[in-house]
Amino acid sequence: MTNTEKNLTQILHDLEKERSIGIRSKLSSLSPYEIARLLEAMEPRNREILWRMVDQEDEGEVLKELVEDIRQNFINEMDTNQIIAATQDLELDDLADILTDLPDQITDEVIRALDRQDQIRLESVISYGEDTAGGLTNPNILSIRRGLNIKGLIRYLRSLEKLPENTNYIYVINRSNEYIGSVKLVDLFTEDADTSIEEIMDSEIIPISASSSADQVIITFQNLDLISLPVVDKKNRLLGEITVDDVVDAIQDQANSEIFNMAGLDDEDDIFAPVLISSKRRAVWLGANLFTAFVVASAVSLFQSTIDQIVILAVLMPIVASMGGVAGNQTLILVIRGIAMGKIQRSNALRLLSKEMMVSLVNGFFWAIIVSFFAVLIFQTSWEIGIIVGASMLLNIFASAIAGVTIPFVLKRVGIDPALASGVMMTTLTDVLGFVTFLGLATLFLL
Amino acid sequence: MTNTEKNLTQILHDLEKERSIGIRSKLSSLSPYEIARLLEAMEPRNREILWRMVDQEDEGEVLKELVEDIRQNFINEMDTNQIIAATQDLELDDLADILTDLPDQITDEVIRALDRQDQIRLESVISYGEDTAGGLTNPNILSIRRGLNIKGLIRYLRSLEKLPENTNYIYVINRSNEYIGSVKLVDLFTEDADTSIEEIMDSEIIPISASSSADQVIITFQNLDLISLPVVDKKNRLLGEITVDDVVDAIQDQANSEIFNMAGLDDEDDIFAPVLISSKRRAVWLGANLFTAFVVASAVSLFQSTIDQIVILAVLMPIVASMGGVAGNQTLILVIRGIAMGKIQRSNALRLLSKEMMVSLVNGFFWAIIVSFFAVLIFQTSWEIGIIVGASMLLNIFASAIAGVTIPFVLKRVGIDPALASGVMMTTLTDVLGFVTFLGLATLFLL
Repeated sequence: MTNTEKNLTQILHDLEKERSIGIRSKLSSLSPYEIARLLEAMEPRNREILWRMVDQEDEGEVLKELVEDIRQNFINEMDTNQIIAATQDLELDDLADILTDLPDQITDEVIRALDRQDQIRLESVISYGEDTAGGLTNPNILSIRRGLNIKGLIRYLRSLEKLPENTNYIYVINRSNEYIGSVKLVDLFTEDADTSIEEIMDSEIIPISASSSADQVIITFQNLDLISLPVVDKKNRLLGEITVDDVVDAIQDQANSEIFNMAGLDDEDDIFAPVLISSKRRAVWLGANLFTAFVVASAVSLFQSTIDQIVILAVLMPIVASMGGVAGNQTLILVIRGIAMGKIQRSNALRLLSKEMMVSLVNGFFWAIIVSFFAVLIFQTSWEIGIIVGASMLLNIFASAIAGVTIPFVLKRVGIDPALASGVMMTTLTDVLGFVTFLGLATLFLL
Repeated sequence: MTNTEKNLTQILHDLEKERSIGIRSKLSSLSPYEIARLLEAMEPRNREILWRMVDQEDEGEVLKELVEDIRQNFINEMDTNQIIAATQDLELDDLADILTDLPDQITDEVIRALDRQDQIRLESVISYGEDTAGGLTNPNILSIRRGLNIKGLIRYLRSLEKLPENTNYIYVINRSNEYIGSVKLVDLFTEDADTSIEEIMDSEIIPISASSSADQVIITFQNLDLISLPVVDKKNRLLGEITVDDVVDAIQDQANSEIFNMAGLDDEDDIFAPVLISSKRRAVWLGANLFTAFVVASAVSLFQSTIDQIVILAVLMPIVASMGGVAGNQTLILVIRGIAMGKIQRSNALRLLSKEMMVSLVNGFFWAIIVSFFAVLIFQTSWEIGIIVGASMLLNIFASAIAGVTIPFVLKRVGIDPALASGVMMTTLTDVLGFVTFLGLATLFLL
């Protein structure tokens, strides 16, 4: 059993026995991330009780870590003062994330409760979207004007009561607040005290533009194994830095939303949301699939008289459709993930297409022979039907390879998330194609 | 177009025109991560040419970033001296990863080329698996004995030529090399020079055991928003630290392998591997699915005489099976991801099960009415058949919700990766159940 499992089991047990002292002491030993996961793992009734036991100083951090659905519910039940109290210790980028969930009026009040400098900083973060570099930016950094030497800088650092947590770089700016370079904190120990800041400053660190996408931020951090990265606005003015802990969250979110989207789910939904709400959310996806299922059924209905005459066709037709679906899905996942990772792009898509077509032919032929053989053996069909099953399966696998490469690119081109819609399109296509080629060939050659 | 896209397009173009000078200068401006992604995006022929143009000093880092399949191919073509030259500047944890791909004899030679201290360190990293905390550990850290004050420590730091890159903590150990605490580099600036190290040392940072799993490492870093974490062996002796950049890679790998496993693919495979090799790799998965497709067909074949008498059943039966599959897949993905994220565990699985059952009933009833209505409207079937389609679809959706929660837990219990096998099992189940209930009810009530 992992720690998370133990904690959940114990807290659920304590909640049942109403042992609130034990729960409070347990909660204070957990991180906001762990508390958020615990809350997400509970039904609304228990969740409400546990939430009221969270230390007020942890509330803001826990809110930040929760999925949007649950966060929204908690915030709706808090009044403005409670929200201000809960969020006052948050880093400004995290506060900005939470503010997007609040009504405008409360947002204004929360902002007014900040000091003047933080108000300006926060407004600059809010002006960028949540999924941009600007939205991930923490404005609470150390910046200095050029011209100091190491001794002077160290004296300045000593004069500060407290450095921002996890400071790795001090940023050098000019009078207009424009970014010039970054000084690594570590280098202050090894270089001579009289050396000027400009000499040890790293000017090769290229700040990222606040309007860049979160995906671009992730790629940049992975590219360069970064711990932090300065962020500038359009005029090269320093806004703050992105730290790697927020990038870790962004990567996790990116993967989660891709996996959930493939099944028409939203990773920000509460898994224990009320039944009617969850049902409604899932209904759209089921409805879309029902529509495609009717399209498939309509295709089959064209061949009713064929099936009426050779009923074994109805038995074998799911094999053709499902093998096309499975093979196509492999290509699809390869391409969707490849696009997300930057491995597959327009310039190499054609080469991949030709490779996938070859692979599908090799596997198509191989499995066509097997399937023909076993269709005859198990279902005692004629050799003609066996050959038609194999041939239509080969065709279907081949077509699904082409579709697997093509569909994600077409969807991306028209601005639809490939992870969301590719699967439905692929299934519909391989089903229709599988049934039509199989029943069509049978009609052509057997009747 | 993203930068990665531009780079790939340009290099492919330059390769065609044999402009090697342009390519070399482009390569030297890219990070090893970017070069690895470029190589992965190419066909073997171009890849070989580009690989020979990579700076020797980048080779080790690029090898580390590549998927295993391609790394293995490159290493097979290098002789021992080339491997030693390429890997000599690697961090020891990265070197350890590469060594696992090498024949024992070459591994020994690479190790012998290191200095004595690094040999000992490397061997301790290698003794832990690649997917453990020990395998992610970088032994190249700064550690000091207790008893120093800040002034003494700073003097010691100044005496070093170069601090390890991205040093954030200095670790305090005793004579037996046992971990005692961590000193944050930042605190050396703000605290008084005569303060003893023990006073400013953070003893709340709990080192992770080298034998912990990589998943545990990921959870710990996310829990505590860490930049680095000390690693100890069973006897609490300090082995080194895990830095967040390696955790970022581990998170990406975890998500990739989950997504790929769902389609029976391996995320460490080369997407441009030779056709026959790729075909063989995919064949296993197709074969498993073919087997299940025959199971489904056998189920249908039991009802041949029913279909023979009411041929419209063959038209409608794919609708029942596919709606069950879609609904079940939603529950499945929710549970698989929930288990991976620690949100779903045995202690709350029953509550989730009851919720998913309720959701499936709501959606099942709703869509059953719709599907009954449209079946009659579009395919002009009798009301009895319409009701049977709806009823069997409801049953199938309900059963798939139960299966969606149960299958991953059962697979996990018997030690099979739920992401790998759940999908096939779910499809087989919903297909068989959909066809059998639909055709069975029809046989019972209509014949």
